[in-house]
Amino acid sequence: MADSPNCDLKSLSPLQLFERVTEQGEKVRALKAGKAPKDEIDAAVRMLLSLKQSYKTTTGQDYQAGLPPKDLILINNGTTKEEDEDLVDPWNVQTSNAKGVDYDKLIVRFGSSKIDTDLINRIERAIGQKPHHFLRRGIFFSHRDMDQILDAYENKKPFYLYTGRGPSSQAMHVGHLIPFLFTKWLQEVFDVPLVIQLTDDEKYLWKDMTVEKAYEYARENAKDIIACGFDINKTFIFSDLDYLGTSAGFYKNIVKVQKHVTFNQVKGIFGFTDSDCIGKISFPAIQAAPSFSSSFPQIFNGKENIQCLIPCAIDQDPYFRMTRDVAPRIGQPKPALLHSVFFPALQGAQTKMSASDPNSSIFLTDTPKQIKTKINKHAFSGGRDTIEEHRKYGGNCDVDVSFMYLTFFLEDDDRLEQLKQAYTSGELLTGELKKVLIETMQPLVAAHQERRKQVTDEIVKQFMTPRKLAFEF
Amino acid sequence: MADSPNCDLKSLSPLQLFERVTEQGEKVRALKAGKAPKDEIDAAVRMLLSLKQSYKTTTGQDYQAGLPPKDLILINNGTTKEEDEDLVDPWNVQTSNAKGVDYDKLIVRFGSSKIDTDLINRIERAIGQKPHHFLRRGIFFSHRDMDQILDAYENKKPFYLYTGRGPSSQAMHVGHLIPFLFTKWLQEVFDVPLVIQLTDDEKYLWKDMTVEKAYEYARENAKDIIACGFDINKTFIFSDLDYLGTSAGFYKNIVKVQKHVTFNQVKGIFGFTDSDCIGKISFPAIQAAPSFSSSFPQIFNGKENIQCLIPCAIDQDPYFRMTRDVAPRIGQPKPALLHSVFFPALQGAQTKMSASDPNSSIFLTDTPKQIKTKINKHAFSGGRDTIEEHRKYGGNCDVDVSFMYLTFFLEDDDRLEQLKQAYTSGELLTGELKKVLIETMQPLVAAHQERRKQVTDEIVKQFMTPRKLAFEF
Repeated sequence: MADSPNCDLKSLSPLQLFERVTEQGEKVRALKAGKAPKDEIDAAVRMLLSLKQSYKTTTGQDYQAGLPPKDLILINNGTTKEEDEDLVDPWNVQTSNAKGVDYDKLIVRFGSSKIDTDLINRIERAIGQKPHHFLRRGIFFSHRDMDQILDAYENKKPFYLYTGRGPSSQAMHVGHLIPFLFTKWLQEVFDVPLVIQLTDDEKYLWKDMTVEKAYEYARENAKDIIACGFDINKTFIFSDLDYLGTSAGFYKNIVKVQKHVTFNQVKGIFGFTDSDCIGKISFPAIQAAPSFSSSFPQIFNGKENIQCLIPCAIDQDPYFRMTRDVAPRIGQPKPALLHSVFFPALQGAQTKMSASDPNSSIFLTDTPKQIKTKINKHAFSGGRDTIEEHRKYGGNCDVDVSFMYLTFFLEDDDRLEQLKQAYTSGELLTGELKKVLIETMQPLVAAHQERRKQVTDEIVKQFMTPRKLAFEF
Repeated sequence: MADSPNCDLKSLSPLQLFERVTEQGEKVRALKAGKAPKDEIDAAVRMLLSLKQSYKTTTGQDYQAGLPPKDLILINNGTTKEEDEDLVDPWNVQTSNAKGVDYDKLIVRFGSSKIDTDLINRIERAIGQKPHHFLRRGIFFSHRDMDQILDAYENKKPFYLYTGRGPSSQAMHVGHLIPFLFTKWLQEVFDVPLVIQLTDDEKYLWKDMTVEKAYEYARENAKDIIACGFDINKTFIFSDLDYLGTSAGFYKNIVKVQKHVTFNQVKGIFGFTDSDCIGKISFPAIQAAPSFSSSFPQIFNGKENIQCLIPCAIDQDPYFRMTRDVAPRIGQPKPALLHSVFFPALQGAQTKMSASDPNSSIFLTDTPKQIKTKINKHAFSGGRDTIEEHRKYGGNCDVDVSFMYLTFFLEDDDRLEQLKQAYTSGELLTGELKKVLIETMQPLVAAHQERRKQVTDEIVKQFMTPRKLAFEF
């Protein structure tokens, strides 16, 4: 592609223009994120505006990110995004705000509902105990139809939990545990079956990886998941590559979803292009299908109408917006959802942790020394430049990554509140806050490693064998 | 869509214009096929030319059937087709020539090889017997890599046969038997394993049909296939909906193919659009995967490198062009192919028989009386308008459907040649030729019905159970 995009804009098709605007938008975002010189950013922004003008002249439409020219797209599904908004989809999370993604805006954009005090209180009444600190602290902050799940629970109607993971590498980081820790709690308080999907097929399709490697990662990741303490009698873990060839119900649901979703729709929802492989294009149906109980005839005795609740990070919501759109058209109940915020990278909340950058994460395989070094060296601080200034003005917990991590992993509410006040007032220094985090994470990771050692290949095999669970349907 | 397509052509996008030209082309073809009044055809042709002119003005490209505007398509795969050429793809066969599709042109367009006398002689030497009359009479007329299959056979290397059927309705017609009759002969002379795919998932995706109905049709069609006389110890018949959830190897091959084919490619090969469901878009991989022996670990002991030979009608070739393109990239051998001509409709060779038009076909469920009536009433005649003219000028076997059917079903070469000469010379009248066809088809269909009655649900179940066959690998 030429460096000077103005030379031949008039000869470009609407779709080509659309792609040029999108690329330039990404360039601007990258420059901003990389803190490039101001004049370089300004030049890129001017180019972006000029491209948008050409797009408008050619198509008669305003450019909308993620939304190709109208002739090419029929359905939008609410993923439209303004240029200065956060980027959130199943493969990218990017924001220019050090506090992280604006979750209230995301709720409006995605059309979900906020988990408010009323809902948390209702959960507390239903289960007769204090809700998990992920709920109390807004880490699970958004939902769809959680009230229906509580209705079902209160009326003694069955439901089940479904969550998952894309096994992209052997080592998981602590952020990967969030949905599993919460799911484990949900399973314990509601006493319901749980299915966990390992999308090894997705990883094979998206990454430069063999089928065998993807499946190997799936089994390795299963060990870390099992080490969270799931009940083997109530939990079924499955690899797509494996289970699709073993289940009488899974493929039938996949093909039903595939019949009711067009390429236009997945293009609008996931941003696929004509150059994407047909495996990616049809994959969303494979993540959708476990939302329907008939995908697990061995667990639910072939019953089709059992409600599903999906705890997941908010970036997975596009899959389930699609699923909820299809469900009534194939005679299935819509799955309910509980959405978590992203777990921030050590370097700051602008992006989520990534398993591909070892310094962005605390891995479940890290030694106490590695944990200490990483936190001391990389954890973004909300403290002041000098001790004197810090004592005088105090630190900023809203952008301090050590404090954020403590909201995830320090269960003691009083202690957390004390730390917040001490840090904000300047009484507690950054190094001291980091020390608290190190002392919290070291035993947590060590205990996980100890439990993981107990998870033999035989135990993994048992969890991953399709079978009846300890529930009657 | 407005009746007057000229009113707003300028406001249409290239893609919309493309679709308008395509529709109008289909309309012209339908009018011609339906022998509409000349002025009606002329008006439709003028409209077509006008639309093509608008398309050229807007896009700067000549309209090419099956090839959306260049901005939207990157790969073409050689399916380009001139306006006056025959239309041949997995869902349509249409020609304006009463002799049927021009198969020599098709060989050039598809890039396959003609089955010539040399190849037929080599087959005869290899198997030590006279080749099937479908080969001798050019009914199987085209191939890909059949010489490699003969190399393998002569070197005592294993190969296997793969064919299939889309189970779109309960009743099959005699044309549906052609690939199966030929496959049965191939299996007998080469003594190799055979897998038969019933694409019930395809029918579910393409038709207004439930998953359950599609699967029911698959099992019903299996009875007609089994009634052709396949050896239960050497043949595995499978429904996609069923086998995908039972096989450790099938889905892995599907996802491998899906990773290596883009939407642009299936758009170029199959003419899919952005409005098609993602199930259709990814389906070609499901028809491709049985070309690889690892899709059947129970038969081939997990071996990956066993060569496959696919006998099928030429309209299925696009699936296997795609498969052959992908095969080396996923480390698999390319399947070889043997292509048959289409079985003509009773009304003439312009189109193939269709199970959805009861009068276009002789069904395997027809009574002797129905067969007689259909042939007498509907079989397109190459005879003259009056007996006097017929006696004087003779009939035309090239367009006479009764004679064409006899080339498929009358095995006696000498008798067929006598009939041809007598009909061409005018000695044999149309009614007499039809009588020969009736007397050929009635016992053939009756015998099929008798054999089908013997095919119990239990036998179908045995054929459709994944298992080892009578071969060692």
